[in-house]
Amino acid sequence: MSMSNVTTRNGDEIVAPRGLAGVVVADTAIGAVRGEEGFYHYRQYAAPDLAREQSLEAVWHLLHVGHLPGDDELATFRAMTAAQRSIPNAVAEALPAIVAAAPDGAPMASGRTALSLLATHDGLRPWLETAPDELAVQARRLVAAFPTLVGALWRLRSGETPLEPDPSLGLAADHVRMITGTAPTPEDTRAIERYLMLTVDHGLNASTFTARTVASTGADLGAVTVAALGSLSGPLHGAAPSRVLEMLLEIGDPSRADAWVQAALARNDVIMGFGHRVYRTEDPRSALLKETALEMGGPLVDLAVEVEDVIQDALERHRPGRDLRTNVEYYASVVLHLVGLPADLFTPTFAVSRMIGWTAHAIEQTKGNRIIRPSSRYVGPTPG
Amino acid sequence: MSMSNVTTRNGDEIVAPRGLAGVVVADTAIGAVRGEEGFYHYRQYAAPDLAREQSLEAVWHLLHVGHLPGDDELATFRAMTAAQRSIPNAVAEALPAIVAAAPDGAPMASGRTALSLLATHDGLRPWLETAPDELAVQARRLVAAFPTLVGALWRLRSGETPLEPDPSLGLAADHVRMITGTAPTPEDTRAIERYLMLTVDHGLNASTFTARTVASTGADLGAVTVAALGSLSGPLHGAAPSRVLEMLLEIGDPSRADAWVQAALARNDVIMGFGHRVYRTEDPRSALLKETALEMGGPLVDLAVEVEDVIQDALERHRPGRDLRTNVEYYASVVLHLVGLPADLFTPTFAVSRMIGWTAHAIEQTKGNRIIRPSSRYVGPTPG
Repeated sequence: MSMSNVTTRNGDEIVAPRGLAGVVVADTAIGAVRGEEGFYHYRQYAAPDLAREQSLEAVWHLLHVGHLPGDDELATFRAMTAAQRSIPNAVAEALPAIVAAAPDGAPMASGRTALSLLATHDGLRPWLETAPDELAVQARRLVAAFPTLVGALWRLRSGETPLEPDPSLGLAADHVRMITGTAPTPEDTRAIERYLMLTVDHGLNASTFTARTVASTGADLGAVTVAALGSLSGPLHGAAPSRVLEMLLEIGDPSRADAWVQAALARNDVIMGFGHRVYRTEDPRSALLKETALEMGGPLVDLAVEVEDVIQDALERHRPGRDLRTNVEYYASVVLHLVGLPADLFTPTFAVSRMIGWTAHAIEQTKGNRIIRPSSRYVGPTPG
Repeated sequence: MSMSNVTTRNGDEIVAPRGLAGVVVADTAIGAVRGEEGFYHYRQYAAPDLAREQSLEAVWHLLHVGHLPGDDELATFRAMTAAQRSIPNAVAEALPAIVAAAPDGAPMASGRTALSLLATHDGLRPWLETAPDELAVQARRLVAAFPTLVGALWRLRSGETPLEPDPSLGLAADHVRMITGTAPTPEDTRAIERYLMLTVDHGLNASTFTARTVASTGADLGAVTVAALGSLSGPLHGAAPSRVLEMLLEIGDPSRADAWVQAALARNDVIMGFGHRVYRTEDPRSALLKETALEMGGPLVDLAVEVEDVIQDALERHRPGRDLRTNVEYYASVVLHLVGLPADLFTPTFAVSRMIGWTAHAIEQTKGNRIIRPSSRYVGPTPG
């Protein structure tokens, strides 16, 4: 299964680099990542600036509608999407069976099942047979209702009663409340909103590309988002933030950090939360999440900051010149823990924001669509 | 959103043709399609030869294990996979709620939800954390159990009791029985087996590529197959065979075929069941399915044969030189109807065979995997 890492032309055949690394497969006006500069943006705005200055609903409006909303637009968008959070009885009544069938909770897999069911109940049709206005409504609906599903599944698993959405709260705060039972403080709301705003979109990562590929067949947005959720559940993609928290809790005290990291490097373990494929400088998401964590404060933050220094020093000695710094997952794990979210729900929480990006990309894919259907190269025994 | 149809290099940037047409993104030993020759194969065997001479389980063994089984191997494989068809009570008990939540049956969407639930119940873990032997078991299990889910959902929707699998039957015959309630005749079993053998794999179509993309994240085979099922539900991909049947029933009599096709061409309608992106000659799947339909015989077959001639003549006059002939869907619709399957289940039946291909590709992807993560080109307003 060896494929070259360079693009070659062999007659009419174009052989792509493995993993399609660096191959442009779509034009997009949603955003971009400039890895060399440590910069990424949504539309024409630097994403960290948006995360600092805007609300999740404003960023969501930016991605789905195309511009930052004025005050009236934002109020309308908030009310409209808050009203879309409720899930119908027929879906709510199926959730206990979904929880009962999951041996260990399996929040990503159960969330996938519940989202699939909701999309079916909503009667979503292939986008090819759906008017653009209606498609936009469906996209908002899936984003709005996903936290309700995640919260209900979690509470059922914990033996608690699922909570109805509270339309007086924003999506981020209501997501936390429907899990923990308590609306977060304004400071915690700000922290979780920042995390979610920082993670709505980030280039053609595997789940976003999955969303575009499924959308390219003309399928409905349920098929699209369920597929993307499956992609995000892969440990090489979205399933790492909880492992950073495990690492920090395992280290426990800054004095133990150096011995821990030396042992991990000696075992050739991957150190969670460090390094990124694209960023050759500081991950701009990590920078704002660290700032946010410092604002929240407390022993876990102190530990994380000290452990970061120790690990970065060790990595510099171990792999000189690689410039491995914290990625988005490192301080995300701290922030998500401090707002009260269980580690099992870190990846589903990542999915809450990425739903905005996936649906934006799927709708963009519908414009001038061509089905995504690449080629393969046969390397087995020749047919006789 | 305009992308060029040629590959260009722009510095280090490689811009792929739209839809990744002709771009090799994977090496595979599973099979290949040679469009110019009207030839496709699984491993080193011409697929129509296999469909003529082998059983579905033998072809399944070929794709999953790598070689055609001997008699003993085949008997073992049959028994092993037949035993994997049963679904656990916790999943069976959730199916009525899935049916109740689907406004119009929605067999593809409900099948997706049920498959997602089954995979969760089975406790599937990311393949990165799964031993290869166990992964092979999981792959067989998902293939084996999918028809049980499709049949149960259909019967519940029709107000009938779901049927337990019958391990004395092959997968194809049991699929039909769990829907219709009656085991098919040997002739009908042969026909549905041929259809399924002809459709297990066909290059990197959108759903197979979706399967490989999701697998590339390290995700479990449930996430992989659920995503692929979503891709197949798109009308540009897997959702057409039932529309061929609708067309034939609408034409009703060969004498009306010419007027019908002239009117359709005048309206610029797409004529279902004709033309294929890859095949420039006869679709080899269509040839064997036509032969199979002729063996089955009856008025629908006579109609289909006459309508084929009329439409092909009309298309040749309307689009000279395009050589638009019947594709796999044309006679598939006839064969599937004649074995007693409802048109709503034509695409889920296609999925029954494609599950074999999707899981084979996912497992191949795990060898020397690299996450599939292409690039996009930003075409929006420049960040300020």
